[in-house]
Amino acid sequence: MNSFGQKLRFSTFGESHGVALGCILDGVPAGLKIDEKFIQSELDRRKPGKSEFETARKEADKVEILSGVFEGLSTGTPIAMVIYNTNQKSKDYSNIKDIFRPGHADFTYFHKYGLRDYRGGGRSSARETAARVAAGAIAKLMIKELGIEVKSGICEIDGIKSKNLNYEAAKKSIIFALDAEMEDAQKEAILNAKNEHDSVGGVSRVKISGVPVGLGQPLYYKLDGVLADAMMGINAVKAVEIGDGILSSSAKGSDNNDEIRSNGFESNHAGGILGGISNGDDIILNVHFKPTPSIFKEQHTVNTKNEELDFSLKGRHDPCVAIRGTIVCEAMAALVIADMCLLNMGSNMDGILKYYK
Amino acid sequence: MNSFGQKLRFSTFGESHGVALGCILDGVPAGLKIDEKFIQSELDRRKPGKSEFETARKEADKVEILSGVFEGLSTGTPIAMVIYNTNQKSKDYSNIKDIFRPGHADFTYFHKYGLRDYRGGGRSSARETAARVAAGAIAKLMIKELGIEVKSGICEIDGIKSKNLNYEAAKKSIIFALDAEMEDAQKEAILNAKNEHDSVGGVSRVKISGVPVGLGQPLYYKLDGVLADAMMGINAVKAVEIGDGILSSSAKGSDNNDEIRSNGFESNHAGGILGGISNGDDIILNVHFKPTPSIFKEQHTVNTKNEELDFSLKGRHDPCVAIRGTIVCEAMAALVIADMCLLNMGSNMDGILKYYK
Amino acid sequence: MNSFGQKLRFSTFGESHGVALGCILDGVPAGLKIDEKFIQSELDRRKPGKSEFETARKEADKVEILSGVFEGLSTGTPIAMVIYNTNQKSKDYSNIKDIFRPGHADFTYFHKYGLRDYRGGGRSSARETAARVAAGAIAKLMIKELGIEVKSGICEIDGIKSKNLNYEAAKKSIIFALDAEMEDAQKEAILNAKNEHDSVGGVSRVKISGVPVGLGQPLYYKLDGVLADAMMGINAVKAVEIGDGILSSSAKGSDNNDEIRSNGFESNHAGGILGGISNGDDIILNVHFKPTPSIFKEQHTVNTKNEELDFSLKGRHDPCVAIRGTIVCEAMAALVIADMCLLNMGSNMDGILKYYK
Amino acid sequence: MNSFGQKLRFSTFGESHGVALGCILDGVPAGLKIDEKFIQSELDRRKPGKSEFETARKEADKVEILSGVFEGLSTGTPIAMVIYNTNQKSKDYSNIKDIFRPGHADFTYFHKYGLRDYRGGGRSSARETAARVAAGAIAKLMIKELGIEVKSGICEIDGIKSKNLNYEAAKKSIIFALDAEMEDAQKEAILNAKNEHDSVGGVSRVKISGVPVGLGQPLYYKLDGVLADAMMGINAVKAVEIGDGILSSSAKGSDNNDEIRSNGFESNHAGGILGGISNGDDIILNVHFKPTPSIFKEQHTVNTKNEELDFSLKGRHDPCVAIRGTIVCEAMAALVIADMCLLNMGSNMDGILKYYK
Repeated sequence: MNSFGQKLRFSTFGESHGVALGCILDGVPAGLKIDEKFIQSELDRRKPGKSEFETARKEADKVEILSGVFEGLSTGTPIAMVIYNTNQKSKDYSNIKDIFRPGHADFTYFHKYGLRDYRGGGRSSARETAARVAAGAIAKLMIKELGIEVKSGICEIDGIKSKNLNYEAAKKSIIFALDAEMEDAQKEAILNAKNEHDSVGGVSRVKISGVPVGLGQPLYYKLDGVLADAMMGINAVKAVEIGDGILSSSAKGSDNNDEIRSNGFESNHAGGILGGISNGDDIILNVHFKPTPSIFKEQHTVNTKNEELDFSLKGRHDPCVAIRGTIVCEAMAALVIADMCLLNMGSNMDGILKYYK
Repeated sequence: MNSFGQKLRFSTFGESHGVALGCILDGVPAGLKIDEKFIQSELDRRKPGKSEFETARKEADKVEILSGVFEGLSTGTPIAMVIYNTNQKSKDYSNIKDIFRPGHADFTYFHKYGLRDYRGGGRSSARETAARVAAGAIAKLMIKELGIEVKSGICEIDGIKSKNLNYEAAKKSIIFALDAEMEDAQKEAILNAKNEHDSVGGVSRVKISGVPVGLGQPLYYKLDGVLADAMMGINAVKAVEIGDGILSSSAKGSDNNDEIRSNGFESNHAGGILGGISNGDDIILNVHFKPTPSIFKEQHTVNTKNEELDFSLKGRHDPCVAIRGTIVCEAMAALVIADMCLLNMGSNMDGILKYYK
Repeated sequence: MNSFGQKLRFSTFGESHGVALGCILDGVPAGLKIDEKFIQSELDRRKPGKSEFETARKEADKVEILSGVFEGLSTGTPIAMVIYNTNQKSKDYSNIKDIFRPGHADFTYFHKYGLRDYRGGGRSSARETAARVAAGAIAKLMIKELGIEVKSGICEIDGIKSKNLNYEAAKKSIIFALDAEMEDAQKEAILNAKNEHDSVGGVSRVKISGVPVGLGQPLYYKLDGVLADAMMGINAVKAVEIGDGILSSSAKGSDNNDEIRSNGFESNHAGGILGGISNGDDIILNVHFKPTPSIFKEQHTVNTKNEELDFSLKGRHDPCVAIRGTIVCEAMAALVIADMCLLNMGSNMDGILKYYK
Repeated sequence: MNSFGQKLRFSTFGESHGVALGCILDGVPAGLKIDEKFIQSELDRRKPGKSEFETARKEADKVEILSGVFEGLSTGTPIAMVIYNTNQKSKDYSNIKDIFRPGHADFTYFHKYGLRDYRGGGRSSARETAARVAAGAIAKLMIKELGIEVKSGICEIDGIKSKNLNYEAAKKSIIFALDAEMEDAQKEAILNAKNEHDSVGGVSRVKISGVPVGLGQPLYYKLDGVLADAMMGINAVKAVEIGDGILSSSAKGSDNNDEIRSNGFESNHAGGILGGISNGDDIILNVHFKPTPSIFKEQHTVNTKNEELDFSLKGRHDPCVAIRGTIVCEAMAALVIADMCLLNMGSNMDGILKYYK
């Protein structure tokens, strides 16, 4: 329900305009150095209000660790983290109390639960992803010990595609653009849409390197399946590709197969996964975000009594959710990989005997 | 690991050339009429050897129910089904005993487990999907009682796209083509590739109609996330789209939002899911299959001692896995929807009181 | 790991001397009135320092709800609750930093994790059960809507058994004694042990009434099995009996069977459960607590270097953990029953059709 | 529902008088030698009809492995096993078609599911435990590689307690009696009850030796909690004790604590578990079975229309279910321990680095 992962289990709570949001990360192995500054720095990458390309809501997103860490090390017990909400303007939402915003989860939550917390989307708000980033930061610390790294960036905005994929450039870019040459055009597209009271979509590309061969549990906890779930479950994501993705479906077998030499694969069409299991190559994902549904143009909708309305949204919103979304993709990828590393231990008797003897 | 679903839980076993394959379907509500002919007819749609567009391996794929059904009705206990393998030619595989076929899971299974059942891919073979289709047939029977139907067809082969999407046409087509006008061109592409000892990719489109509002458990057992996992976990799938999918990432918010009137949504860009929960519209998926990795062209590879080889595959293979794959997509979609219907019961106190009083 | 339940899922965090402890309760149906005063009153029943029969550590055990409740009603999203620690005296524990206290989890945690939070037992402290009581209070509110009630009391201390089982008397007793006539003798036994720097064991009896027929998922999420897990998992519990319990093993079938008449069962040897499923009668449990391992007498032990020591514990401890333990038994029973009520919805097609139509 | 375990996951199917029963055992590490003769020998210990102390139903209980084993070794994929029913006499049950047998699950299954397979108790029959024994045999093979052994025997029948606990004697005894001196008296008690158309209860004692320190996942997948669930979930079990069990509740702390020396614990009141985690000592369980509910004496009951009846059961039944039950206790204990061994891998970073480097 509100948990993710098998051996590294991650449960979140909290609403956009509630008291606080946070998570419990369960299954972190004991003895991991918990670098709190790193966790905060990851949250800072995602936090809103840093530029004109994001919502104007300013949240400190200061994370506090409540448990599971002692003298700077994880103890093997659940790590609870909490982020208090400080900059809610719930009044902004009183006008949508009884109205379903198009493209939002208002309609579905109301009908599923019979009531909803209408303030800023409540639980369905992307604000919840702050908790994912906090947990993902710890996952990153864990997999770093195994030599694994997760990077990401924006490879497309409003149909404007990156030609080069430079993850170092993305780190420095305020919109996490992978291609510095396309960055200005991408920024302009965002601002144009914003000025027109509209929004744009975008694509996040995620690269996971240093992955050992063997991660993924066939046949129903496959590495590709679980990554797809993790990414598709991020707010506004509508498509997930692995490796060549949609291009695979129009390729020939002789082009698409990655042939093998003694020093490894000759290509990486597969995106690092074969039969649901990592093959040691980089894992490559493309994650497609729809445009932010929160736009200021007038739209048709109904209220909770099913009465028709023409309605213009107000408030503070990201003009392109893909931007901050890419940080969430990284966090979810790190959580999946860390979980799979733990699950993989026990695949064969040799490994088990090595562990116990 | 080898199970899928929360309340309707589906566990499979079996290898391509083992004694038998099958599944346990747990959580089927008592009192459901189990139409064995329908289950067999679903397996017949997927079974191999029906035409030149499929592998020449002929399997009866006769399913036997071992438990959970009494006097034609489900009893609420696990339904075990078994399909014995009858047409294995394991000798075909003795030449690949120590060789990793490019594009296959041979490499990853061997390194994960330290050994592998090399006969026809063992557990990683698409043969296992017969068990999914058997279980999916029961899921279809269950959701039919709630007015829900799952349909699918092939909307693209080797880059040749369908223009019309006619699910009735797909039922009659030997390659499940959605567009009868494009069918000949799509068939020709398959046969051309086959003649050149090559293979082609394709795209399955799935449509689920009659879905009630409210299916999907936020935030980590979302309907879209779980469907993405279910589809990406099918052999050879490399991308999954929901609704407008990848097109969403280049759309504007004002185009992509589905506006609402008192009689429903004015469009269905969302593909029937908002915030991870069904909105009552048709659920639409595009599932991208890579070309069959089993091709007869010579390829580079290594053996288990990491010695380089140039190697040509033999045996019987589908030239386009998407075709039979679309039946598996249907089955997995039905299993997801049935599970979500069961999970949804308990979302609010009104429903619970109605159930218990 | 640190979670319990299937559809009503309860995850806790926190250590005895950490910043805070708490829980996420996931799966609470929307629309339940959340009576915060009731939750606090349940915590007050369990909280330490109320009398000479308990530890002298005084904790306010003030609970705060961080999420999942809006305008007094549950929203169907996770309810997070936090209790900050205020009265830690971690210095009390510096002398046991490297020492394993007999009867405690110090030894096992250290060897499992390679390090431990030695302050008051860290995560293994019974202090964590405050979070269970908070969650259990919400479960009680939920099952009350279905007419189900959980009561408990102490039926034995230091071998002194209650003759009458009066749950109203237990509510008024400072040691939750079920038999007012035996209460003084039981109290005296506790104080005698305390004066001798020793501790005593005791037995909690739990009665659940108003249970509908049909709760429990055969065959591996049985109502009796899950209750046994829930009770055995409480700190210091060493035996669990259902119905006649250990007496059943020396009974004859003709005595032990509960014969049936049109108005119900003629007896309740089964303790309300047949074949792992509730039969509508009261569910009866006996939960056996060992004496508190924290005693002030000198004991043999070793330190983390495996050097032998003779050692006397200091600090503040309950002389009889069964007393406050009985409140935890109630909470866990309520959580199990609430979970089973939710899981049971979907057992048969009639119920499902009633829900959806 | 019908599955047990986390990393070693065990799912069963089958009814007493259905086509077959069996299981899928998922998570067995690759490379384990699967000794099929041993598996069959374990089933032979449990199988019915071996003596006058058991039911007269004779079943070969011949197990077939359908998957997951290749060239004598486990492959890491699910091991499916099937046992066909051969000696059903379903006609014996036509007279109870509409009647609820006292002490049985007939009443609860009928009310939960709205219908039931009345032949021999259907799914609720102890016949299902054959599948547990088959799976348990594989678990035994796995944990044997780690030096762990599970033994058991009967320590009490009809109140007649064993004085000595000799597990070698139990292996040779037809009633698995731990004390050869008490065996005749115990046998006599069984036959006396049988002659009087009655039945007796009994107690199984389980001893697990060679257990490493550290098994068990605090706080909600504790070793003691999970063992309690596993044992309480066996048909007819009404109480479970760990270590000193119910005696703990009347002991003093100074007697009950196991003091520690450099070569280990000075006593084992705890039964090898502290804080839910194994401490390296033998794990000791007492499992209390009620008398077989199937007796031939006339009893009060009702039918499915709630009409009162006086009723005498016919058919073939065990006069003491504890006897064959002890083999099931062994199997479940082995499954729990094997699962915990797998889960434990990942508790600390040192172990993880050792595994991956």
